[in-house]
Amino acid sequence: MATLPMVGYDDAPPEVRAVYDDIMETRKTDWINNFWKVLANDPPTLARTWNSIKEVMAPGALDPLTKELIYVAVSATNGCEYCIRSHTAGARRQGMTDAMLAELMAVVGMANETNALANGYAVDVDAAFLKDAR
Amino acid sequence: MATLPMVGYDDAPPEVRAVYDDIMETRKTDWINNFWKVLANDPPTLARTWNSIKEVMAPGALDPLTKELIYVAVSATNGCEYCIRSHTAGARRQGMTDAMLAELMAVVGMANETNALANGYAVDVDAAFLKDAR
Amino acid sequence: MATLPMVGYDDAPPEVRAVYDDIMETRKTDWINNFWKVLANDPPTLARTWNSIKEVMAPGALDPLTKELIYVAVSATNGCEYCIRSHTAGARRQGMTDAMLAELMAVVGMANETNALANGYAVDVDAAFLKDAR
Amino acid sequence: MATLPMVGYDDAPPEVRAVYDDIMETRKTDWINNFWKVLANDPPTLARTWNSIKEVMAPGALDPLTKELIYVAVSATNGCEYCIRSHTAGARRQGMTDAMLAELMAVVGMANETNALANGYAVDVDAAFLKDAR
Amino acid sequence: MATLPMVGYDDAPPEVRAVYDDIMETRKTDWINNFWKVLANDPPTLARTWNSIKEVMAPGALDPLTKELIYVAVSATNGCEYCIRSHTAGARRQGMTDAMLAELMAVVGMANETNALANGYAVDVDAAFLKDAR
Amino acid sequence: MATLPMVGYDDAPPEVRAVYDDIMETRKTDWINNFWKVLANDPPTLARTWNSIKEVMAPGALDPLTKELIYVAVSATNGCEYCIRSHTAGARRQGMTDAMLAELMAVVGMANETNALANGYAVDVDAAFLKDAR
Repeated sequence: MATLPMVGYDDAPPEVRAVYDDIMETRKTDWINNFWKVLANDPPTLARTWNSIKEVMAPGALDPLTKELIYVAVSATNGCEYCIRSHTAGARRQGMTDAMLAELMAVVGMANETNALANGYAVDVDAAFLKDAR
Repeated sequence: MATLPMVGYDDAPPEVRAVYDDIMETRKTDWINNFWKVLANDPPTLARTWNSIKEVMAPGALDPLTKELIYVAVSATNGCEYCIRSHTAGARRQGMTDAMLAELMAVVGMANETNALANGYAVDVDAAFLKDAR
Repeated sequence: MATLPMVGYDDAPPEVRAVYDDIMETRKTDWINNFWKVLANDPPTLARTWNSIKEVMAPGALDPLTKELIYVAVSATNGCEYCIRSHTAGARRQGMTDAMLAELMAVVGMANETNALANGYAVDVDAAFLKDAR
Repeated sequence: MATLPMVGYDDAPPEVRAVYDDIMETRKTDWINNFWKVLANDPPTLARTWNSIKEVMAPGALDPLTKELIYVAVSATNGCEYCIRSHTAGARRQGMTDAMLAELMAVVGMANETNALANGYAVDVDAAFLKDAR
Repeated sequence: MATLPMVGYDDAPPEVRAVYDDIMETRKTDWINNFWKVLANDPPTLARTWNSIKEVMAPGALDPLTKELIYVAVSATNGCEYCIRSHTAGARRQGMTDAMLAELMAVVGMANETNALANGYAVDVDAAFLKDAR
Repeated sequence: MATLPMVGYDDAPPEVRAVYDDIMETRKTDWINNFWKVLANDPPTLARTWNSIKEVMAPGALDPLTKELIYVAVSATNGCEYCIRSHTAGARRQGMTDAMLAELMAVVGMANETNALANGYAVDVDAAFLKDAR
């Protein structure tokens, strides 16, 4: 039970149906996952969020699988179960194997460990990294 | 000024020097960044952390560039400036372009947005995602 | 099952009952939610936390509804399900509509997105913002 | 020094200038803050992010001041200094007084405290809150 | 430059001075650190926060050094530089050695790593841990 | 259902069994908790993570109970339910009483509150704390 009700396809107003149709066509699926059904309570937020995701996750300088891996990495760090499960599924659709998932998690784990160490010791940024930044 | 002093190469005990030498050889550089110099106050932690990073960041099912991108994604999410700067530099060494960095950040931003939305609305995980998980 | 047992009204020592009574009177309800029943294992922490919440959430320069919206915003960012649900309920009691919840979440989502972008790019604070700060 | 260079107005391509002009007109200011100048390295991300912020922060079911307060609350929770400073400035432009800032922070502080307590004790969500959700 | 001005002892109203005096007496110091000087803009928040800290950090079932170590652990996890530095100083006053700080950070690092792994893999809680909880 | 299957003792390859045996011997238990069974999909990550935990949690400058308390503090701050429950159980095995757990949570709560306040007000670090750092 989310904090707002889910809007099913049959009950959806036309502008929500248009987004649902685009989601299913873009993803080559015949169903809409709960996240969008909850966002649909506010059609402008649904449309804006979907259009952003669609633009951001499209192939570009990074391929779609790399983008899904990054999404899982952020979601694991934030502890967002919904996001972990939906984007792990998304990454599998893009070809992620069990070995790739295991390596992804190993990197995410080490990154969280060393983030805590660098912050906890208040390590000064090396001049070389600042110069390198631009 | 970190909360523990930095251990320079010349002042380092042999077990620390051995790690420093391995870092420079592995990374093909001639300097040690501050993170390791602070960890060196506790030689077993230095050795353990470096060996883990070396193992985790080596090529495997994922290539080293993808791993650095994931590291930056986690560090941006945690707001760890040291880690953002050092791994952005590391990603550039592995070939990350400005366009790739911009797309990486776009994905990281959207992931943090939708993580907050999914958590904030307490969206239930779809049965399909659970089945998909294993 | 929390990590400490819940202390029911009938089993509570007098100093816990006094806090329970004040919670029910202040909130015009006839029940105590689980959070307080777990805190009641340590009566001084129960009393201190309730008194702080009561003082902080009272009307002042900000009205009680605004304060509940802020509480939900923080809880969504932290991914604390208990807090999201209890303060979403609290905000509804203060008059939050579905449209307000949807706008709240849209702002929380964007804030988490741009937080990640500002941190991830290590954007320098503009001098104008520092001067403005005081 | 951000990890990508800042794009000044004079060096900006037309699609970036169009966004800059819209930012200055919408906010009634004659300068562009660093965040946008860094995002401008990727014009589609600049346009998408600005359009989203403009839509989300416009008056609606919540007024603009309430939205800025929520933005500061999220940024304080995430520890994003850039975001804290820019949106504290934004909230002051919308009329936030020192007393309102102090109350805002008091709520944000309590929310972070009780979030940690509810998570740390693994408190079960009350049935009443689930029913209330929908 | 904080987002509210600092209130010095000489300019402080009597209720703020009373808290400042209690801080200095409790901590056996002759100065007030910036955190309290900023909170002093809102005297009730200053008094409430100081009284809570004083009560929570006093010796009890846990000794004051252990409490300071826990404070540093949370602050490192949240990446709050002010808190890391002030409570690292506090822990040193309670007798924390360099070796203890190094072990503390090693535990904090591992905890953040395994938190990300447990969340990222969505590991189910073992029945034995639930039973153990109460 | 985790995102990778659990590897039981009987189905485990020899290098995984060796780690399982060491876990049970070190902890004086006759079962393996789910976390390790999921990590076992990638035997090098299982071995590396277990060896790190074993080294980090061993008695040293800090005793094992203090280390478990710190682990719970980090896990509560991150909102990792699996970690909260497993390390709360671990802390109880090391002698943590209900009173100690209640004080631990009180400190964790206050630390999260003041972390948000110090970050949210952008309080400058006192010179004395920097000098003290080294």
